Amino acid sequence: MFHKNEYIERRKQLATQFNSGILLFLGNEESPMNFFDNTYHFRQDSTFLYYFGIQEPGLNAIIDIDEDKVILFGDEMSMDAIVWMGRQKTLRAKADDSGITLVSPAVQLETYIASAKGRKVHFLPPYRAEAKIKLAGLLNLNINQLNEAVSVPFIKAVVAQRSVKSAVELVELDRASEISADMHLKAMQMARPGMTENEIAAAVHQVALNAGGQLSYPIILSVDGHILHNHSHRNTLKEGDMVLNDSGAETPMGYAGDLTRTFPAGKKFLPAQKDAYNIVLHAYQEAVKALKPGVRYIDIHYKSCLSLAEGLKSLGLMKGNLEDAVGQGAHALFFQCGTGHMMGLDVHDMENLGEQYVGYTDELKKNTTQFGLKSLRLGKALESGYVLTIEPGLYFIPELIDQWKETNQFSEFINYDKVEEYRNFGGIRVEDDYVVTDNGSRQLGKQLAISVDEVEAIRSNAF
Amino acid sequence: MFHKNEYIERRKQLATQFNSGILLFLGNEESPMNFFDNTYHFRQDSTFLYYFGIQEPGLNAIIDIDEDKVILFGDEMSMDAIVWMGRQKTLRAKADDSGITLVSPAVQLETYIASAKGRKVHFLPPYRAEAKIKLAGLLNLNINQLNEAVSVPFIKAVVAQRSVKSAVELVELDRASEISADMHLKAMQMARPGMTENEIAAAVHQVALNAGGQLSYPIILSVDGHILHNHSHRNTLKEGDMVLNDSGAETPMGYAGDLTRTFPAGKKFLPAQKDAYNIVLHAYQEAVKALKPGVRYIDIHYKSCLSLAEGLKSLGLMKGNLEDAVGQGAHALFFQCGTGHMMGLDVHDMENLGEQYVGYTDELKKNTTQFGLKSLRLGKALESGYVLTIEPGLYFIPELIDQWKETNQFSEFINYDKVEEYRNFGGIRVEDDYVVTDNGSRQLGKQLAISVDEVEAIRSNAF
Repeated sequence: MFHKNEYIERRKQLATQFNSGILLFLGNEESPMNFFDNTYHFRQDSTFLYYFGIQEPGLNAIIDIDEDKVILFGDEMSMDAIVWMGRQKTLRAKADDSGITLVSPAVQLETYIASAKGRKVHFLPPYRAEAKIKLAGLLNLNINQLNEAVSVPFIKAVVAQRSVKSAVELVELDRASEISADMHLKAMQMARPGMTENEIAAAVHQVALNAGGQLSYPIILSVDGHILHNHSHRNTLKEGDMVLNDSGAETPMGYAGDLTRTFPAGKKFLPAQKDAYNIVLHAYQEAVKALKPGVRYIDIHYKSCLSLAEGLKSLGLMKGNLEDAVGQGAHALFFQCGTGHMMGLDVHDMENLGEQYVGYTDELKKNTTQFGLKSLRLGKALESGYVLTIEPGLYFIPELIDQWKETNQFSEFINYDKVEEYRNFGGIRVEDDYVVTDNGSRQLGKQLAISVDEVEAIRSNAF
Repeated sequence: MFHKNEYIERRKQLATQFNSGILLFLGNEESPMNFFDNTYHFRQDSTFLYYFGIQEPGLNAIIDIDEDKVILFGDEMSMDAIVWMGRQKTLRAKADDSGITLVSPAVQLETYIASAKGRKVHFLPPYRAEAKIKLAGLLNLNINQLNEAVSVPFIKAVVAQRSVKSAVELVELDRASEISADMHLKAMQMARPGMTENEIAAAVHQVALNAGGQLSYPIILSVDGHILHNHSHRNTLKEGDMVLNDSGAETPMGYAGDLTRTFPAGKKFLPAQKDAYNIVLHAYQEAVKALKPGVRYIDIHYKSCLSLAEGLKSLGLMKGNLEDAVGQGAHALFFQCGTGHMMGLDVHDMENLGEQYVGYTDELKKNTTQFGLKSLRLGKALESGYVLTIEPGLYFIPELIDQWKETNQFSEFINYDKVEEYRNFGGIRVEDDYVVTDNGSRQLGKQLAISVDEVEAIRSNAF
């Protein structure tokens, strides 16, 4: 974890946003897989991690604004626990690491909250069922009432603080992107026709584990790159396929990387693949060029979409006035999602706190109806210190093509006859991670082959 | 999955155990990691898997005994879901695979259960918070009341059926042990002084992933082998250390393997390590020899413990009448857990249904107080078709030694002066998987180096 002063300062800064009440932080519990004691790897809640830094289950904490106190609630290990799990730090030592002076047995949290009658208990939206049960019990609410009772001021204060990454966080985020680049290099170097997607995914996974952390999200690695979140790895690569690899590492401290590359299963892209790839790459470059404080990300998204549309027009897939086409969402037949999202302790940073709060403002509301735009997680003006992804793509989804074609949707902008030729083309995406700086942006991690030539050079030397 | 007839037969056999009522099977949902849509890998509930075989979230099922009906509840994919996840099988197709003719929208389960008023709804103990919330809602119970309301006849019927493995299940369990053996061979071949535990664990994990499945439990791989469930991998191996590797694969169909080997970080065991290793190996062999139908596992456990105690006496660590010592639990200073457990779709098979039901009988209750015995998960008489582990060990746990020594516990059986010499010795365990046959037993998977000579031969050729 970081030095305790980092956490002390973060908590102090948060506390200044409130005049009274109790800020309640639930740490995550172990997550059972197929029975209670057989668990997935432990992942601490990101907000808990941000303000306290302690990566252990069974902990909760409060900041009592009125009494100016921070208390860590948890239990010491029993002898049985020591036999099974080994001696670990005492609660007091864990608290010390985080700069907390007050500790209390886990069971006392309930008493503390109960005795706060009349004072506001601020809590964040729970995303795990265990936390819902815990909150409902603590606050004497029905589980279905929790959503209405979450604290919007608490959400907004946390989002404001976590959105701007500090210097020590950027070191971690650079590291996460660096490990992620190694994962991608591994895939580009090892893949060859005849291999299964699963073999490559397993090796990519190992690179993340080997660096001491975990995956920041389930690996998407497929010759069916048009399936946006494809978590099955059952296909066998064959000459002529493209492999889309969207994977990233989480550092031991919990920071995420998130990169995508698309490369030929053989040594070279086919001509049509190369053309489409360069369209995506150009859209990526347009977005990167536009990154700087004050620019709204939704405008960067439009710029990127317009660039894609121009490319699609050059291929004969789109037609007409492209600004109108993009404004109305016609390009979303080929690019169904957003150009990027915030990243930090979560790969979609703070997604559990609500996209409206993380990516938009009271003035710029998220468009929740237009296909394409409703999947844009970030729209608001950028600030120095924001970390985000740039990830345009082109995806040919047969089911979606059929649905749009049947209703002649946007036929003034789309050449459905030409689209048919691309029906089984698959998908292409490239993605890198950036931090917004005072003057522009800086790519996180290290350079990773991205141009057709760079990718083909790796593939040609691979086998 | 298996052929649909396998599932049809299993359900039929289960139904014969009930005269009336509804058997309710909750499938597992996705398990959120750090936000709702960023999930751990999906793991279906093992009982759902056993009776239905479908590895997808969002499914529940019932067997209505009175109406002689099986219904699968779930939803078809929306276009948004197809865009993100790709076209998957329809609910009807999934049901077909499992030999089910009736399907119904997910939301209808609530109506079905509500309309069953007066009839008994049998359900199994939930181990995930999500399932607790679901059950409480369906049955109109408080979450705290669920434990009292679980159906013991349902538990007993499922345990009876799942305990005896069928021929097709044994093929899977052989495969799981085989992949697990490959994981161990990898570790024994790659480890060397200067490497971190984490590097080796990452490579072991890859072997499991590469075979298309997952880990059946978190990897225990440590030079601190005395910590029974040690999930941290932070140490660096050095000459003179022993590495304890307890890890196993889960096949794509969900069956578990569970093996342990302890090997020197260098090429050879030190003399004292070799002596202790052979004591553990002998206890393992004694247990294996005793495996056959009709024998109570608790007696095999005693035999194994007695063998360990004899070895400990030869080293000067124990003394006195060893049958008395083992009967009273004095050996548990060095062997704090059980000699083995049932294995199948769960590494501790059916642990979520309750150890008393899985490993014991109404006549042979589990000893829940004696240190050591209370961690023996299996005690009852074996039957042909049971699959289980044999895993004796010796563990020197400083905190436990201090606690016992302070109170002079079992000083008639333990030479505490001698124990001090072993204070930092660490731990040794060996473990293999067996199926009980009509006449004795058969080891699952394939042979894996286990004698000192076999292990040292691999280590000597490794580097």
